[in-house]
Amino acid sequence: MPDLSAVKAALKSQRIETPSWAYGNSGTRFKVFRQAGVPRDPYEKLDDAAQVQAATGVAPAVALHIPWDRVDDYAALAAYAKDRGLTVGAINANVFQDDDYKLGSVSHPDPAVRRKALDHLLECVDIMDATGSRDLKLWFADGTNYPGQDDITARQDRLAASLAAVYERLGADQRMLLEYKLFEPAFYTTDVPDWGTSYAHCLKLGDKAQVVVDTGHHAPGTNIEFIVAFLLRERKLGGFDFNSRFYADDDLMVGSADPFQLFRIMHEVVRNGGLAPATGVAFMLDQSHNIEAKIPAIIRSVMNVQEATAKALLVDTTALTAAQQAGDVLEANAALMDAYNTDVRPLLAEVREELGLHPDPMAAYRATGHAEKIAAERIGGQQAGWDA
Amino acid sequence: MPDLSAVKAALKSQRIETPSWAYGNSGTRFKVFRQAGVPRDPYEKLDDAAQVQAATGVAPAVALHIPWDRVDDYAALAAYAKDRGLTVGAINANVFQDDDYKLGSVSHPDPAVRRKALDHLLECVDIMDATGSRDLKLWFADGTNYPGQDDITARQDRLAASLAAVYERLGADQRMLLEYKLFEPAFYTTDVPDWGTSYAHCLKLGDKAQVVVDTGHHAPGTNIEFIVAFLLRERKLGGFDFNSRFYADDDLMVGSADPFQLFRIMHEVVRNGGLAPATGVAFMLDQSHNIEAKIPAIIRSVMNVQEATAKALLVDTTALTAAQQAGDVLEANAALMDAYNTDVRPLLAEVREELGLHPDPMAAYRATGHAEKIAAERIGGQQAGWDA
Amino acid sequence: MPDLSAVKAALKSQRIETPSWAYGNSGTRFKVFRQAGVPRDPYEKLDDAAQVQAATGVAPAVALHIPWDRVDDYAALAAYAKDRGLTVGAINANVFQDDDYKLGSVSHPDPAVRRKALDHLLECVDIMDATGSRDLKLWFADGTNYPGQDDITARQDRLAASLAAVYERLGADQRMLLEYKLFEPAFYTTDVPDWGTSYAHCLKLGDKAQVVVDTGHHAPGTNIEFIVAFLLRERKLGGFDFNSRFYADDDLMVGSADPFQLFRIMHEVVRNGGLAPATGVAFMLDQSHNIEAKIPAIIRSVMNVQEATAKALLVDTTALTAAQQAGDVLEANAALMDAYNTDVRPLLAEVREELGLHPDPMAAYRATGHAEKIAAERIGGQQAGWDA
Amino acid sequence: MPDLSAVKAALKSQRIETPSWAYGNSGTRFKVFRQAGVPRDPYEKLDDAAQVQAATGVAPAVALHIPWDRVDDYAALAAYAKDRGLTVGAINANVFQDDDYKLGSVSHPDPAVRRKALDHLLECVDIMDATGSRDLKLWFADGTNYPGQDDITARQDRLAASLAAVYERLGADQRMLLEYKLFEPAFYTTDVPDWGTSYAHCLKLGDKAQVVVDTGHHAPGTNIEFIVAFLLRERKLGGFDFNSRFYADDDLMVGSADPFQLFRIMHEVVRNGGLAPATGVAFMLDQSHNIEAKIPAIIRSVMNVQEATAKALLVDTTALTAAQQAGDVLEANAALMDAYNTDVRPLLAEVREELGLHPDPMAAYRATGHAEKIAAERIGGQQAGWDA
Repeated sequence: MPDLSAVKAALKSQRIETPSWAYGNSGTRFKVFRQAGVPRDPYEKLDDAAQVQAATGVAPAVALHIPWDRVDDYAALAAYAKDRGLTVGAINANVFQDDDYKLGSVSHPDPAVRRKALDHLLECVDIMDATGSRDLKLWFADGTNYPGQDDITARQDRLAASLAAVYERLGADQRMLLEYKLFEPAFYTTDVPDWGTSYAHCLKLGDKAQVVVDTGHHAPGTNIEFIVAFLLRERKLGGFDFNSRFYADDDLMVGSADPFQLFRIMHEVVRNGGLAPATGVAFMLDQSHNIEAKIPAIIRSVMNVQEATAKALLVDTTALTAAQQAGDVLEANAALMDAYNTDVRPLLAEVREELGLHPDPMAAYRATGHAEKIAAERIGGQQAGWDA
Repeated sequence: MPDLSAVKAALKSQRIETPSWAYGNSGTRFKVFRQAGVPRDPYEKLDDAAQVQAATGVAPAVALHIPWDRVDDYAALAAYAKDRGLTVGAINANVFQDDDYKLGSVSHPDPAVRRKALDHLLECVDIMDATGSRDLKLWFADGTNYPGQDDITARQDRLAASLAAVYERLGADQRMLLEYKLFEPAFYTTDVPDWGTSYAHCLKLGDKAQVVVDTGHHAPGTNIEFIVAFLLRERKLGGFDFNSRFYADDDLMVGSADPFQLFRIMHEVVRNGGLAPATGVAFMLDQSHNIEAKIPAIIRSVMNVQEATAKALLVDTTALTAAQQAGDVLEANAALMDAYNTDVRPLLAEVREELGLHPDPMAAYRATGHAEKIAAERIGGQQAGWDA
Repeated sequence: MPDLSAVKAALKSQRIETPSWAYGNSGTRFKVFRQAGVPRDPYEKLDDAAQVQAATGVAPAVALHIPWDRVDDYAALAAYAKDRGLTVGAINANVFQDDDYKLGSVSHPDPAVRRKALDHLLECVDIMDATGSRDLKLWFADGTNYPGQDDITARQDRLAASLAAVYERLGADQRMLLEYKLFEPAFYTTDVPDWGTSYAHCLKLGDKAQVVVDTGHHAPGTNIEFIVAFLLRERKLGGFDFNSRFYADDDLMVGSADPFQLFRIMHEVVRNGGLAPATGVAFMLDQSHNIEAKIPAIIRSVMNVQEATAKALLVDTTALTAAQQAGDVLEANAALMDAYNTDVRPLLAEVREELGLHPDPMAAYRATGHAEKIAAERIGGQQAGWDA
Repeated sequence: MPDLSAVKAALKSQRIETPSWAYGNSGTRFKVFRQAGVPRDPYEKLDDAAQVQAATGVAPAVALHIPWDRVDDYAALAAYAKDRGLTVGAINANVFQDDDYKLGSVSHPDPAVRRKALDHLLECVDIMDATGSRDLKLWFADGTNYPGQDDITARQDRLAASLAAVYERLGADQRMLLEYKLFEPAFYTTDVPDWGTSYAHCLKLGDKAQVVVDTGHHAPGTNIEFIVAFLLRERKLGGFDFNSRFYADDDLMVGSADPFQLFRIMHEVVRNGGLAPATGVAFMLDQSHNIEAKIPAIIRSVMNVQEATAKALLVDTTALTAAQQAGDVLEANAALMDAYNTDVRPLLAEVREELGLHPDPMAAYRATGHAEKIAAERIGGQQAGWDA
């Protein structure tokens, strides 16, 4: 059986990064529903993130999205974060919301558009320098809607050229995380549709280029934990964009649609050493809280990742390995299921208390009155959202 | 072999309804790209629809969407349409874009919201009275995002009650078309997720309630033509919302993703008598032209439906039936494929010329200069779009 | 909170039916791997089923498959079962393994084949009379592989005629359970591909015709618990064929691929009264243990259904309903998840001890030495399998 | 517009390899239906393949499957082929039908099983030496059915070791083609589930290791032509296993389920130079003719590949490229669709006549009387099939 103090130590040292945009409004193509108290600028987003950190103790880093989080002085923003016990996490580039990007950004047929997109990516590295961020997260909406619309191979050539230019610009301790996605917003081809495409580009770029796995970006039936294990074996897993989905890229709270899958993913992370900070695997959330309250939804998501991690750490690997090597299918499966079926909530409550936290993060947050406070105070101004 | 004059007659009498909203801007949750010359009100949408009708000759009806097409005087709007050789087609209700509808409309837990939604549906029937429309098309975004969020059965009860109230209000020659959709914008449950649910409700309501098949609203692997054949056999197919998709509800031009599927659908329509106007099957488009020019995209879509229909009409049913009854798998398949592999563009050019039209609708439209005209004239104002 | 004694009572009265064929060999189209000790006739299958019942106490009924379980004297077989504390459950017809059925059975274009298939179905009702079985379970492999191969509508007509003839033959206390399946072994059309098709046929047939939900027979992304709730609301859910799948009809142990989905299904069953014996919902397994030991796999499957049921019974419906009606998405979800995250294994151990059983069915079975005994004794003869 | 004589020349030089096993019986896990006249040994399979070659003129190579096509003297078998105008194509290894392979072959936890599997693979290279085959095609059924059953990473290590040993053994002009498949017969993990996994292994092995794309082996929604273009750009596309599918790995006649997809695939092949023999892209069929007559089904499949190729060759690349670079979505799509909508059957009839063949291969085959001859003559003996 696993050593309980080691399990607790691992749970205490895990870090889960929250995304600034999840604190703002989001929605589907049909409607963005506005919520009371939503932040109106990056500083208010950090204020909300500080609540998540206060309640959970494991979520100090906040990913930014440029231009949604554009400010005049990024060093000041980083200092503002630091004052609240936070750090600035990954910088997420956005080359999909300008009218010029209708037919793509770095893969666009027009070199002027590609140049504009590249300049934005390079600007993001400048911002990283200012905020001290390690990771540049790249997701490209680039693709086509109709067969024939553009040339698949030419688009790969253009993509590769831009990636190389950005890679060149990275500092010694900076990384480029290349995300893949099956479809949406492009419906016929997507320029980085799967982990293989991302992996192939990263391999050519070098060690600082790593694949990021968004758990909502796969075709139905894809075995995500296989990909995770494979990339860890190849030392090419840069991190996760966690969320969950029933159908497409639903961006629901991680662990809400298929908690067993999340456990299996964390099992591969633990088994392949990915929890060790040295591996550099970033555990990030990327979610849209369209109809539920945002801060509690993020707290719940952090807790869901912790619960899956705790279960993964509780796997009796001795029993598991023995059954696997003996070819005992049922025993091997049972060894894994034993951990999954364990109620780890008491263990996590203990971990939190040992960290000086409230054992129940949801109750802790409710007790702060923050939700009522921001609903009352954040009147006027422009609420943050995907479209602003 | 089919009688060519009968084939031509059928092609001349087919009617394909275009949706007012396809003339306006649309997009994904990531971005709505604006296009030059887009209509700014329902009248300008009708002007554009008149171009489609002028080029194709088979698309006189235009579906409206309320409140996107709200005007003070619907009779005047209908007269405006008539003056341009058009008619007002189905009235599409919208109970998904008001803040009150965050958790649903007719299935919402709060009776006040349900009442508001029902009032809107009844208003749509009033509009039908004014425009002379036959069909009320109902699509509900209602559903839930998270397990437990609401009670599936209670939502069905609420839905059934609202549908019954609307059904009651229908005039003698009016119909209710109930659309189903697998998911989006709801991600966990959808209150009318599949044809079976729509069918069961329609069956209880009565003959004026009919199922509408949106070709983009199914799970991967669903055999749509089976559903079409089944509903025609049950006299419960009210019509189509045509579009095409590679992954989810992509709303691409019909026939662009899987032209063979469209042909198979039209084959079932033809084989089961659904082309006959008396059957009441409405052939409607429901598409989003996010990145392509809107009017030519709609013309192309109308042509794609015509080509699939022409091929379906060319099936040698004698040979097909003989092979089917003999259990000759390859011959039966070959009989169908012969029709599909035929290039029907010359036949359709002939049909158009016999109708006094240009043989090439795309060229006909280009020659009008309409695109340049509206781009120059429609300056200022608010472009029509899904969000307005 | 739920009353614990009521929860226990419900768990004690639940019955899970095991299928005779799961005790025999099975496999994929690539290979059937033979296992030691596999039964060679229906009597030995009952011997194995008696082990499952001895270990779990909730699995007395055994479904038969004709002709795989053909015997000369069915009354004697039923008596043999009774002597071991078992009963004969559903009779499963097989009209897919005779060379005549290459192009279908009840939907075959040739009336002679249809007659042969119908005769087999009627024979199954004769067997039900002899065994005292309540349910005739009908699954049809009928369908086509190629577009055009046969006429969809004509096949429905033929299917409906056969179903009516069988329905007519049913005794007062007998039922017909009509299964649906998306695809396999037919690859283009399947004659009963979804619940809507099964429901429509059952509705016309009458109250004794009910839909059976095989959890592995849906398109990706299908919300099975919605179907369960809908059918219970319509009083048309006859029962389940439980198993689990990652991709297609994998027929793995129920609860092994997505235990959360199984819980959600059982939640709808409990919420809509489906656990009450009067509702007539049959909880049957339909699985293939291709690579794992068969009897323990079946015991594990029974336990998995029990665990999901226990969690569903533990849902705090007062809290759930209150949150649902208040529109509190996160609280409603949390109310459901609280039950799911509970470790119910101790509760079930208690339930078993109160029934006079070993608290751990797997350990109980191992202790019998039955596995070693049958491996040693069942030498020679023809092992039971799908193909025999 | 493309030069017609170049188009014809390309069509004349294309070669489509047929698989020996498609001439034998096949089926689903539910039933293998036997057909009259099916070959009983590899020689009779070659006799049937000679019919396909006689009718089409472009299918001289026949892939073998070991041990299904095991003979004492492979050089004699190759000579037998040569006498009939045929050549022996790819050698397909089979490490999935022996009882030892229940839990895998090259990835099996037991080193003895791995050794046995590796020995078989090496034997296949010996056979290649004897037959003069260029390609060793490797498809592994290896994987797991249940979470925890085996260790994903360890299985990759074992797989990599075996592949390296086989690679080492290849002659200077021999290649290893590594196939991937999403699932089946393994249901939870598959050791080579996607192109990325195959690509990563091939990259490490070297230039003689290439990816093979089976068109039926992808998750729903996968854009296969993207993969084809990507692999051609990387010079890692070894060839195709052509077939078609509606749902899973249905193994239907290529082009029968989605002819437009086949065209798009061939468009990428043509556009990226893959038709040139120097590229080494092998166009192989891998199909199961479960219910249709086998030889005509194979002829039809060869014709379907030819028709898709012809359409791809007819694309007006000048117009296509101009529209793509201008960002004209509709024109670019139209340029592609113009070629697809062309009826190329007359062109292919001409090509065949210029080759001295009957313009209609199906009629040519019917005229031979071969079907009747083999049905009469091949009485007794054991029909070839997947299980023998």
